[in-house]
Amino acid sequence: MQTTCFKTVLEKYPIIFFDGYGVIKNYKGMVPGVEKTFTWMLEQQKEYYIVTNDASRSPMQLAESYQRLGLHIDHERIISSGMLAKEYLDLKVHDGIVAYLGTENSAHYIESMGLHPLAVREIDETNIDQVNALLFLDDEGFDWNYDLNKTLNLLRKRTIPAIVANTDYAYPVMQNEVSIAIGGIASMIENIAGKEFIHFGKPDSQMFMFAYDKIRETRTITKKEILMVGDTLYTDILGGNKFGLDTVLVLSGNTQPEEAETLIKTTGIVPTYICDTAAI
Amino acid sequence: MQTTCFKTVLEKYPIIFFDGYGVIKNYKGMVPGVEKTFTWMLEQQKEYYIVTNDASRSPMQLAESYQRLGLHIDHERIISSGMLAKEYLDLKVHDGIVAYLGTENSAHYIESMGLHPLAVREIDETNIDQVNALLFLDDEGFDWNYDLNKTLNLLRKRTIPAIVANTDYAYPVMQNEVSIAIGGIASMIENIAGKEFIHFGKPDSQMFMFAYDKIRETRTITKKEILMVGDTLYTDILGGNKFGLDTVLVLSGNTQPEEAETLIKTTGIVPTYICDTAAI
Amino acid sequence: MQTTCFKTVLEKYPIIFFDGYGVIKNYKGMVPGVEKTFTWMLEQQKEYYIVTNDASRSPMQLAESYQRLGLHIDHERIISSGMLAKEYLDLKVHDGIVAYLGTENSAHYIESMGLHPLAVREIDETNIDQVNALLFLDDEGFDWNYDLNKTLNLLRKRTIPAIVANTDYAYPVMQNEVSIAIGGIASMIENIAGKEFIHFGKPDSQMFMFAYDKIRETRTITKKEILMVGDTLYTDILGGNKFGLDTVLVLSGNTQPEEAETLIKTTGIVPTYICDTAAI
Amino acid sequence: MQTTCFKTVLEKYPIIFFDGYGVIKNYKGMVPGVEKTFTWMLEQQKEYYIVTNDASRSPMQLAESYQRLGLHIDHERIISSGMLAKEYLDLKVHDGIVAYLGTENSAHYIESMGLHPLAVREIDETNIDQVNALLFLDDEGFDWNYDLNKTLNLLRKRTIPAIVANTDYAYPVMQNEVSIAIGGIASMIENIAGKEFIHFGKPDSQMFMFAYDKIRETRTITKKEILMVGDTLYTDILGGNKFGLDTVLVLSGNTQPEEAETLIKTTGIVPTYICDTAAI
Repeated sequence: MQTTCFKTVLEKYPIIFFDGYGVIKNYKGMVPGVEKTFTWMLEQQKEYYIVTNDASRSPMQLAESYQRLGLHIDHERIISSGMLAKEYLDLKVHDGIVAYLGTENSAHYIESMGLHPLAVREIDETNIDQVNALLFLDDEGFDWNYDLNKTLNLLRKRTIPAIVANTDYAYPVMQNEVSIAIGGIASMIENIAGKEFIHFGKPDSQMFMFAYDKIRETRTITKKEILMVGDTLYTDILGGNKFGLDTVLVLSGNTQPEEAETLIKTTGIVPTYICDTAAI
Repeated sequence: MQTTCFKTVLEKYPIIFFDGYGVIKNYKGMVPGVEKTFTWMLEQQKEYYIVTNDASRSPMQLAESYQRLGLHIDHERIISSGMLAKEYLDLKVHDGIVAYLGTENSAHYIESMGLHPLAVREIDETNIDQVNALLFLDDEGFDWNYDLNKTLNLLRKRTIPAIVANTDYAYPVMQNEVSIAIGGIASMIENIAGKEFIHFGKPDSQMFMFAYDKIRETRTITKKEILMVGDTLYTDILGGNKFGLDTVLVLSGNTQPEEAETLIKTTGIVPTYICDTAAI
Repeated sequence: MQTTCFKTVLEKYPIIFFDGYGVIKNYKGMVPGVEKTFTWMLEQQKEYYIVTNDASRSPMQLAESYQRLGLHIDHERIISSGMLAKEYLDLKVHDGIVAYLGTENSAHYIESMGLHPLAVREIDETNIDQVNALLFLDDEGFDWNYDLNKTLNLLRKRTIPAIVANTDYAYPVMQNEVSIAIGGIASMIENIAGKEFIHFGKPDSQMFMFAYDKIRETRTITKKEILMVGDTLYTDILGGNKFGLDTVLVLSGNTQPEEAETLIKTTGIVPTYICDTAAI
Repeated sequence: MQTTCFKTVLEKYPIIFFDGYGVIKNYKGMVPGVEKTFTWMLEQQKEYYIVTNDASRSPMQLAESYQRLGLHIDHERIISSGMLAKEYLDLKVHDGIVAYLGTENSAHYIESMGLHPLAVREIDETNIDQVNALLFLDDEGFDWNYDLNKTLNLLRKRTIPAIVANTDYAYPVMQNEVSIAIGGIASMIENIAGKEFIHFGKPDSQMFMFAYDKIRETRTITKKEILMVGDTLYTDILGGNKFGLDTVLVLSGNTQPEEAETLIKTTGIVPTYICDTAAI
């Protein structure tokens, strides 16, 4: 399959959205050569954002994780699905307890809004009636057996919104090894409970809109000026396309070079360009 | 079930989004008393929009259909899923033929963008290679048997985006009678072809964002100032909630008064308020 | 990919189940060389059955269609999904009208059981209350637009079982051209109506059980003695495996030689053998 | 809603299939009065079977659990989904390791067939290549977090059949409390892995066929002589209907008396009779 030179593509767009995992970094660290891309974008005064399905950490902590790889990305440049969940709670949940599945760290978000977070394991008869929302944040920080059963029963007893702050079903942990993500767990509970949850994350447009709105606070742009770079057809490319952006599929992550063409054909999800990596 | 007085709710919000069918009008004409709501909103300088899953007509024609019922609604106040499909084509399809299923009337949109619309029935060996997108617009205007088979085979031959301009599966045509909508037909083709289509319409956030953006062109608002009024939990209320709006479920359309409470409980889709109708 | 010699496989099993389309015949006629397989099976006193998702014709008519290709297959050797639908009606519907979608020809089945078949188009206010079942038989013989809308409204008015006599979503009509099958149409109506239909056809075990029972009327066998030969992983191979049969995937129909290995890996549906064709 | 006298229904059928949980017993013990039904059936020489989605115990152990409630049911009268999984392994897996999720107790089945069971947690680089099947037996006996991630990665590395020995998504543990069943867990893994698993359990016909075959070993019967008694529309009633049996929905378990009529109407799953309980 013929791929396009990534630099040639970049040159056409003043604003670039990047997926994080599989594009900028992977299980081994930085994707080789990507640091040059960021240096070049700085020189060229390109504006960029990381648009990522991640609710396990704050943008500040995500920025630190890039820093540790040697890449300086300002936390203001990071848009995560966790930020959408935060906005939802801010707009729609005014008081009471927000029950959550995730690490204590991921729950800091809830506290920062003046809401009272409570780990699902700590729900009991004395507080269950104050629980006004359920939040799926991270696959870590709780006992899957005990807490998932408790979550299912919470939803049977209380008619409250359930918010999933990451739509991913799995994430890579090393070469050929993946881990079940909170999005996969939440979908199981959704199926068993027979309810409709509120899911935040790519391919949903709200992720892209959040970044788009952030840019427009300071300047006037159109969607034609934005390029979305991702490694996954179902999230980055489908979502970017639907939002009206031009899209690049890179082959450094989820999509193997030898399967890209077949996958595009069978899914009907067509990126504007295909490039080997986001390195230049 | 205890319902809330609609006027009391309206008074709290400067901006109101209305679903059309089942809220303002139904198979018999105007929902009784709704004209008073619009008169009152005019007096009170409330800003309102009709946010509707409809791609069969232009906003201009939709406005005319309200006019015929005796309700003057400016076409600038109407946001339809067809407008999102139009924006997609404008941003993402730069040349070639756009094949469509729908009436000739619904295809005028495509033409107005300088693109070349072609009814699926007219695709043949001489033009199939120029087809760059497939658009599902309306359930009328084509032969279901002949044209749906042709559509399926088009998608097997050409790797092109398929855009569904209305997510509804069915729509009411008279009391206790519904008609299959283009959204239901498109989902059948999507399942058989095994591809991912691009769907525009509630509950997807992009509908609400389009209206939200339109307002913000002229003034600064927050989502807290907007109320969404709808008759369907899965589209109006789920979508409104997810976008961060307060929501009213009215019982004049899709959701029967006697089933509302059970439906809210089993689906977990919770409106901010429940009112009998949008009449005041 | 390494394929196995079909004759070597056949020799191990006294009883063989064949899928029809894609294995014995295709859009051009007989799969080349398959007639020799049948001659050889006759000499070797192998017992065989055609197990096919087809409700458009009786076994007698299906036998005739093989006869026209030059292959003599006794109608007693043909097990179709239509026969399961017939058994269901025989056991579960004792009187009244059976509404159907399909050709008049396909409806003869219903009549032969002493039940009163009525094409959906002929349902009206005088007879709708006598309709006790709905049967999806064939994609031909009715007006898709008019009759499918009528079918949907029938299911909203009457709480009756809906039986789908063919699980296939599409069937090939010529090279690279398929046609939507009644199974695909029925699934659309099922989704829109939100009801559970009763589906007969592979991969469901009931198809294999029907053939298995037929054999056991005259002799004692075990499942280990039966081989299922098919061209489709999702129906023939998944169903055969689940029923406990050894299975052969042939590459003369639905599954292309170059994609077989990838498909087996991604679906996890593993045939016991892979052979080029059912010819020997 | 008008219910029918259970005894009047029983009298019409020489053979009765019972679901276990929700029909004969519940979280508190025996459903009151059901012991009289079994005494009466003994006197009347009715033949009965328990047809249950349960793979956590052998029929012998299931019989003991009824014994402890004071009900003598011969283990020969118990047909479980675990028996179908056992038959599958017996027919289709001839050697190597069968990896499983469940208690050691539930794994005895595998051993009894001469196959080598291995808990998922014990899979490592030295034995993974010998794993020839994966079996979902029970929701207990393993660490959900560690072992489910390991299961997902096993399926990414080895193209092997995955067998789910219980289709239930959840099971009741006390009034208003449920527990996630292995069927729900398996469906999550199936969705994330994107593979097709083999599911055994009601509503699948194979459960009913297994019981039907068992009876026919000793006598000749027809499906018209069999009544299926269950408390769940989606499993007992849908499956019984599809297999061609007359069905009774009892209101002592999963289906609440006040919701029965609505559920039948919305699902389109229609039992032949509705009775309060299986007590006489």
